Amino acid sequence: MEQRAAVARQCRWRRFAQDEQLIDHWAETGDVAFIVEGRARVVSHSAGGREISFHDVEAGEFVGEMSALDGRPRSASVVAVAEGTLIAFLAPRPFRELIAGHPALAMTMMARLCDKLRVATDRIMELSTLGANNRVHAELLRLAKTRGRADGRAAWIAPIPVHSDIAARVSTTRETVARVLSDLTRDGLVERRPDALVVRDVARLEEMVEDVRGGA
Amino acid sequence: MEQRAAVARQCRWRRFAQDEQLIDHWAETGDVAFIVEGRARVVSHSAGGREISFHDVEAGEFVGEMSALDGRPRSASVVAVAEGTLIAFLAPRPFRELIAGHPALAMTMMARLCDKLRVATDRIMELSTLGANNRVHAELLRLAKTRGRADGRAAWIAPIPVHSDIAARVSTTRETVARVLSDLTRDGLVERRPDALVVRDVARLEEMVEDVRGGA
Repeated sequence: MEQRAAVARQCRWRRFAQDEQLIDHWAETGDVAFIVEGRARVVSHSAGGREISFHDVEAGEFVGEMSALDGRPRSASVVAVAEGTLIAFLAPRPFRELIAGHPALAMTMMARLCDKLRVATDRIMELSTLGANNRVHAELLRLAKTRGRADGRAAWIAPIPVHSDIAARVSTTRETVARVLSDLTRDGLVERRPDALVVRDVARLEEMVEDVRGGA
Repeated sequence: MEQRAAVARQCRWRRFAQDEQLIDHWAETGDVAFIVEGRARVVSHSAGGREISFHDVEAGEFVGEMSALDGRPRSASVVAVAEGTLIAFLAPRPFRELIAGHPALAMTMMARLCDKLRVATDRIMELSTLGANNRVHAELLRLAKTRGRADGRAAWIAPIPVHSDIAARVSTTRETVARVLSDLTRDGLVERRPDALVVRDVARLEEMVEDVRGGA
């Protein structure tokens, strides 16, 4: 706790409006951003301006450690998703000292980087081997498993995911997401309720995904 | 040096034939593999059997640290690319002890994981925003910069890269690679010599890649 208070004192605190950028891909800062309140999203943009999103960072988590650790430029931008997102920024040097001084923390950091690398590897495999339709199926399955409330064979995903968010997650267009969800609804696998998107048979969706993915 | 000898004594040594698998995606081992002689390649396969390759590991480098660090399953397979590749395998526990006991080593490991994550992020962006043609251009540019011998505006890449290797690196087909290289040859940007592939104007190739990528 003393340690934590000491770290908190070294931080620069700032609140961000919704959609405001807290880490700029092109800025030369290496600060780590601790999300104290709200939520943030790691994103990058194509030359054509299309948004590719990587992952969301919730309150209690942090983001931006790569530049702090290796001193190289930012690999992406980070924007506040919730209004009034409160961030505590820690400069690279105290962050590295904290880690170098605590072997357990260093091991946790390595496991965290491994986890990100596994997610990235899965995404590369999906982009390399699955069509856009199947990638939407795979993302829906991830949402059902991570954010869904189980109800027998079904999973209730609330709030209803935004089409453009799914599109940015699997690198496709909003139109494709809309079409795939409408096809799944027609087939009875998905049902749109006023406050939730219901995957009516998670096991069947999983089979559909595993069939094309080859059980990886 | 004493340290190094102590680690070497804890290793299990084995030689592998060309194309032999030294780390199996589906096996439950967490050993780290040090490439003592030869070369290895990190690969994964789609349901249809298509090979997606990640990176090559040269003598003096190691691979397989993720499962050793986080105890989770293998994210890919590793095969020997050179005949008689000599591997020293170190079990997860001594590997983790080595790292936990040496803060400098831990920081190096984190920078290494960050580097892999940056390469993966770039590849996700390329797969998400570039067509197959442009991805072949981007890979050719990487080869010119990393493996090419500079000669004025040109870069000599030797040995000549194999079409199927480029295809596996950028997740496309051999036929697409052959067609793109033939187009570049017709345009005078690439020239095939008996012992090298020559990129005649690296700056112009770089412009072509940056134009579609948006300067990332």
